[in-house]
Amino acid sequence: MKVAIIGATGYSGIELIRLLQNHPYVEIEMIISGSHDGSRISEVYPHLEEIIDDKLVALDIEQLEKVDLVFFATPSGVSKNTLPLLMDRGIKCIDLSGDFRLKSPGAYEDWYGLEAAEQKYLDQAIYGLSEIYSKKISTATYIANPGCYPTAVLLGLIPALKSGIIDPGSIVIDGKSGVSGAGRKASLGTHYAEINENVKAYKLGRHQHIPEIEQTLGDVYGEKVNITFSTHLIPMSRGIMCTMYADFQQDVTTDEIIHLYKEYYQNSPFVRVRKSGIWPATKEVAGSNYCDLGFLADHRTGKLSIVSVIDNVVKGAAGQAIQNMNLMNGWKATTGLLMTPVYP
Amino acid sequence: MKVAIIGATGYSGIELIRLLQNHPYVEIEMIISGSHDGSRISEVYPHLEEIIDDKLVALDIEQLEKVDLVFFATPSGVSKNTLPLLMDRGIKCIDLSGDFRLKSPGAYEDWYGLEAAEQKYLDQAIYGLSEIYSKKISTATYIANPGCYPTAVLLGLIPALKSGIIDPGSIVIDGKSGVSGAGRKASLGTHYAEINENVKAYKLGRHQHIPEIEQTLGDVYGEKVNITFSTHLIPMSRGIMCTMYADFQQDVTTDEIIHLYKEYYQNSPFVRVRKSGIWPATKEVAGSNYCDLGFLADHRTGKLSIVSVIDNVVKGAAGQAIQNMNLMNGWKATTGLLMTPVYP
Amino acid sequence: MKVAIIGATGYSGIELIRLLQNHPYVEIEMIISGSHDGSRISEVYPHLEEIIDDKLVALDIEQLEKVDLVFFATPSGVSKNTLPLLMDRGIKCIDLSGDFRLKSPGAYEDWYGLEAAEQKYLDQAIYGLSEIYSKKISTATYIANPGCYPTAVLLGLIPALKSGIIDPGSIVIDGKSGVSGAGRKASLGTHYAEINENVKAYKLGRHQHIPEIEQTLGDVYGEKVNITFSTHLIPMSRGIMCTMYADFQQDVTTDEIIHLYKEYYQNSPFVRVRKSGIWPATKEVAGSNYCDLGFLADHRTGKLSIVSVIDNVVKGAAGQAIQNMNLMNGWKATTGLLMTPVYP
Amino acid sequence: MKVAIIGATGYSGIELIRLLQNHPYVEIEMIISGSHDGSRISEVYPHLEEIIDDKLVALDIEQLEKVDLVFFATPSGVSKNTLPLLMDRGIKCIDLSGDFRLKSPGAYEDWYGLEAAEQKYLDQAIYGLSEIYSKKISTATYIANPGCYPTAVLLGLIPALKSGIIDPGSIVIDGKSGVSGAGRKASLGTHYAEINENVKAYKLGRHQHIPEIEQTLGDVYGEKVNITFSTHLIPMSRGIMCTMYADFQQDVTTDEIIHLYKEYYQNSPFVRVRKSGIWPATKEVAGSNYCDLGFLADHRTGKLSIVSVIDNVVKGAAGQAIQNMNLMNGWKATTGLLMTPVYP
Repeated sequence: MKVAIIGATGYSGIELIRLLQNHPYVEIEMIISGSHDGSRISEVYPHLEEIIDDKLVALDIEQLEKVDLVFFATPSGVSKNTLPLLMDRGIKCIDLSGDFRLKSPGAYEDWYGLEAAEQKYLDQAIYGLSEIYSKKISTATYIANPGCYPTAVLLGLIPALKSGIIDPGSIVIDGKSGVSGAGRKASLGTHYAEINENVKAYKLGRHQHIPEIEQTLGDVYGEKVNITFSTHLIPMSRGIMCTMYADFQQDVTTDEIIHLYKEYYQNSPFVRVRKSGIWPATKEVAGSNYCDLGFLADHRTGKLSIVSVIDNVVKGAAGQAIQNMNLMNGWKATTGLLMTPVYP
Repeated sequence: MKVAIIGATGYSGIELIRLLQNHPYVEIEMIISGSHDGSRISEVYPHLEEIIDDKLVALDIEQLEKVDLVFFATPSGVSKNTLPLLMDRGIKCIDLSGDFRLKSPGAYEDWYGLEAAEQKYLDQAIYGLSEIYSKKISTATYIANPGCYPTAVLLGLIPALKSGIIDPGSIVIDGKSGVSGAGRKASLGTHYAEINENVKAYKLGRHQHIPEIEQTLGDVYGEKVNITFSTHLIPMSRGIMCTMYADFQQDVTTDEIIHLYKEYYQNSPFVRVRKSGIWPATKEVAGSNYCDLGFLADHRTGKLSIVSVIDNVVKGAAGQAIQNMNLMNGWKATTGLLMTPVYP
Repeated sequence: MKVAIIGATGYSGIELIRLLQNHPYVEIEMIISGSHDGSRISEVYPHLEEIIDDKLVALDIEQLEKVDLVFFATPSGVSKNTLPLLMDRGIKCIDLSGDFRLKSPGAYEDWYGLEAAEQKYLDQAIYGLSEIYSKKISTATYIANPGCYPTAVLLGLIPALKSGIIDPGSIVIDGKSGVSGAGRKASLGTHYAEINENVKAYKLGRHQHIPEIEQTLGDVYGEKVNITFSTHLIPMSRGIMCTMYADFQQDVTTDEIIHLYKEYYQNSPFVRVRKSGIWPATKEVAGSNYCDLGFLADHRTGKLSIVSVIDNVVKGAAGQAIQNMNLMNGWKATTGLLMTPVYP
Repeated sequence: MKVAIIGATGYSGIELIRLLQNHPYVEIEMIISGSHDGSRISEVYPHLEEIIDDKLVALDIEQLEKVDLVFFATPSGVSKNTLPLLMDRGIKCIDLSGDFRLKSPGAYEDWYGLEAAEQKYLDQAIYGLSEIYSKKISTATYIANPGCYPTAVLLGLIPALKSGIIDPGSIVIDGKSGVSGAGRKASLGTHYAEINENVKAYKLGRHQHIPEIEQTLGDVYGEKVNITFSTHLIPMSRGIMCTMYADFQQDVTTDEIIHLYKEYYQNSPFVRVRKSGIWPATKEVAGSNYCDLGFLADHRTGKLSIVSVIDNVVKGAAGQAIQNMNLMNGWKATTGLLMTPVYP
């Protein structure tokens, strides 16, 4: 199978390249980058030298008809214009950006501050949270790949929410992210000396992942769910941890919660549920497609705490995109994705 | 004034030494360390060479009668045995460890797993949260210096709690700490390669700072307050951030909250209240005695978010200890403590 | 093929496990660990959960006869006692420790401060610098896998030295290593708060890799070579960079040097030679088996500068061990080792 | 005394502000910043809130006549145009940039790629390496404050070079710097995710500090000295280490070298000479004006190794600038500069 990557010089783009090197059924046919058109990818990223030497080419919609699937690894605001052109041609796409995740154009415009794609295009994109929507994904042509925070949050919350154990009105999510999540564009906010030896809170109550999380929680719960969501920048390159809190019914124990999650995810090879008293760490999933979960039902306070970790560039972006590609093609979800975490 | 430091080779101990170099009224008379008895402090810590060359001496209670005040910078479980001997002699003490913070011996035994000091000794120690208990501190002889997390949490929560704006039953605290908070003792949990490029949740619902926070919240509120408290290890040396969440009354705005805090702390030179939309960062207080606070009253969710940052080794330990010493002696609270944060 | 790993709970041991998951011809039969005997490897390392769940077993020489090859991932001073027992039984071994690298027992005793293995055992071990000694390795039964610094240094120096371009008496090597090179044992020297935001020089002129480098340089050059070698601890987990300096003949240019190296390593898929003006970075080889080299022949000073980077845990330990296993078995050197570097 | 700071929003500028808060004789009268004209400094740098609230003003030469001394904390290429205007008015200046360090306009143009200031202005600036040129500095009106690398290198090399112990033709300098040395301007090269967990060599043989070091070595030695100088970017914010190598006469021991340096720097309170076998670390000078030195005369190789560390923002910039201001005013060199290093 032949694929193209648009926006290949961002961190999600090169992670797609890294992971696709291991994929048995896929060949990268075209690497598209507006900003580096004409260079070779190994000139922009010397770590790829002697591994992949493709030239970066400019976007040409006609040329994309040659490939079987197109990945968009572009910043917000790009695919909303380009992806509809591919939809009109029926070319399979997986969009790693936020442009097709929100079904309401108004919500997109409110939270992203950009004009949304037309409703008819938004409606065609399936939300690619692999573990939850695997059936829909398997027949999808266009995938809106989930955001990094939403992936960690939703895998952590959905089983408890669906089972009715927690009060949906009480959900607090405290997110902690490495800096690669902000992309590769140079900015004061990602300058080494500003980030190192620092934790910074940002965008409290204003993060564009809030409506994405609420839309999906509402979908699985059947009612509107509002969340309190805070984000923090952590001095590390990769990794997201979300610590989540919600009121629970008094008669549930930590072990019962763990049992519930183990059942729920028994056919989900990338979700690992920790034993009681063992807490996840981002390093334990680094470079891999795993999502690790830990739990505490604290009867002193009546609060359930859930800790969820992923590698934001893998399960939170390129890895889940490949998992979705696998599902779309009827391959095993784990095809090309069974990398052991890189530790330490 | 002459002081002694017991446990001077831990991180709080050497921070006391650093800060006391700047103090106009104090001289370090004795540096006591069981583990390095006989060495000079500059052999253990070469960064102190040509600054302070005192020999480390073993603890000798009689010798301590020569000094005006004794700092305990020891791990939990040390001062509970030694400090009573000084109380019996009426020697002023500031204890940076947790041994005299909890007024209930049972609580200490539950959360620390150690036998507590006798009630009559516990009762004599004043809890040294400088901004809140300045009056009591000014006449105290023995100070139980607050823990690092409790300092950040309590300064952030107390004005809102006392004013009745938030529901005490709804408080969630998400703590993030640099590694120096774990002390200098080598352990797998503080090994560089395990911490670097990692965020790890630990001790959820079991941290020994929970009863300390609840005791003080209960004291200022007048009723028992239970909190949900989670702690996370961050790949940095210094700094604590606590992000706090609580339900608030619908008719309060972020700006009103900020106004309330500015009023409350108008005579507290070390507490800085950020404007709406500006969030604190640990680096902005590094090496200094400041506590910076930021706020959001989110009407979508009815939750108040409070972000509080301190340098755990300064305001969370040695700096607040000196602030308390200043208060005990009738000096200005800021004496010797007006260090500008070290940035970047 | 079945292998056993002795000392599997150190960083080299778990990296062997990670890499062997990708190897098409090898199965891990036994994981041996004195310190964690009876636990499962995934209890010691939660990142391995659901990937490998083997129990750690105690060393039992008889049991090792069941496997085709034994990896020693033990600290110095262990294999010198155990490996001879396997030699007596003719069981293939690859020793990642320093015990069999030095052919002179006296040198081992001088630099390691331990009694050496008997000469007859030392003589049987082939020094496994894969690119340089591939022929000998292909027929070897016992491999002394090179140290991390020596791998980076020797791949960088040997072509220039053999070609006679540089003066062997003028070699200066400035090594910079991440902290994983010091192993997983907790110590003050690897405590996060001591390493973070710090560069520390250590063991100048006394590092045990000096005789290993000199022995190999002498072997390829045909005469004794003495080097000046300094080592520095860098606040990162993985990666080694060695910057090397030597006097060169005035009529060589940087491009000629680069040409020489490209020729020399044309059949060495893991050595990548950078273009003039492009310098290697450790991140560009992270998680991979590559060694990247950069060069400057500076005619202002008559010095050749060579920069060599590897991932110390891969090419400097477990990766090269697998590369050697591949060579010993007549497999392609790259079998199971073509991981793209993890970036960023 | 009243001072102005031009370019106050860079890292050297805010470090001047931090350090001048502690200075007993100096008041900051004007903070000049083209890029943030009109803002308050505490809006650009929230860590300064409630400490200094001055407005940033645009440069106005006439206004500068009100102050006693002007600090330039500007990037290269700014002061060469502005400082001559102040020289024409006889206003004392300390220039932290590289514009007036090289006495030869041609050298400046070669290494900086910019047109130099006129020779008559270059000639008026005294090179402010405080320990070496204290006499000249004490009567100077204009100071070219040394670069960060040159400060570490020159303090480490000069005593050995002047004493004739080392061969000036054999000097190799391996520099390692934290990222703050590159300034605050956002760039891909200082992006957190590119720097973290990485060591990168850069500008080998091309760094603009080479002619500055050679000019000063030549000045103290009396003959032209050429150096081999390599620079490496280290994942930390502050700190420079230079490891230096040179051939020495065979009859000198490490202890004799140490003795020589202790003598040489006996009246230099900011230079600390480590004992034999003890090596400096950048963290041991963090936040302070110290330069720590360590030595090895290795008789195996005939090479002397010298390790020199400074905090690049303090002794390598703002601290040394204040030290020079002290000398110019006849104050004690240590006035306002006796900060204990911040550890850890």
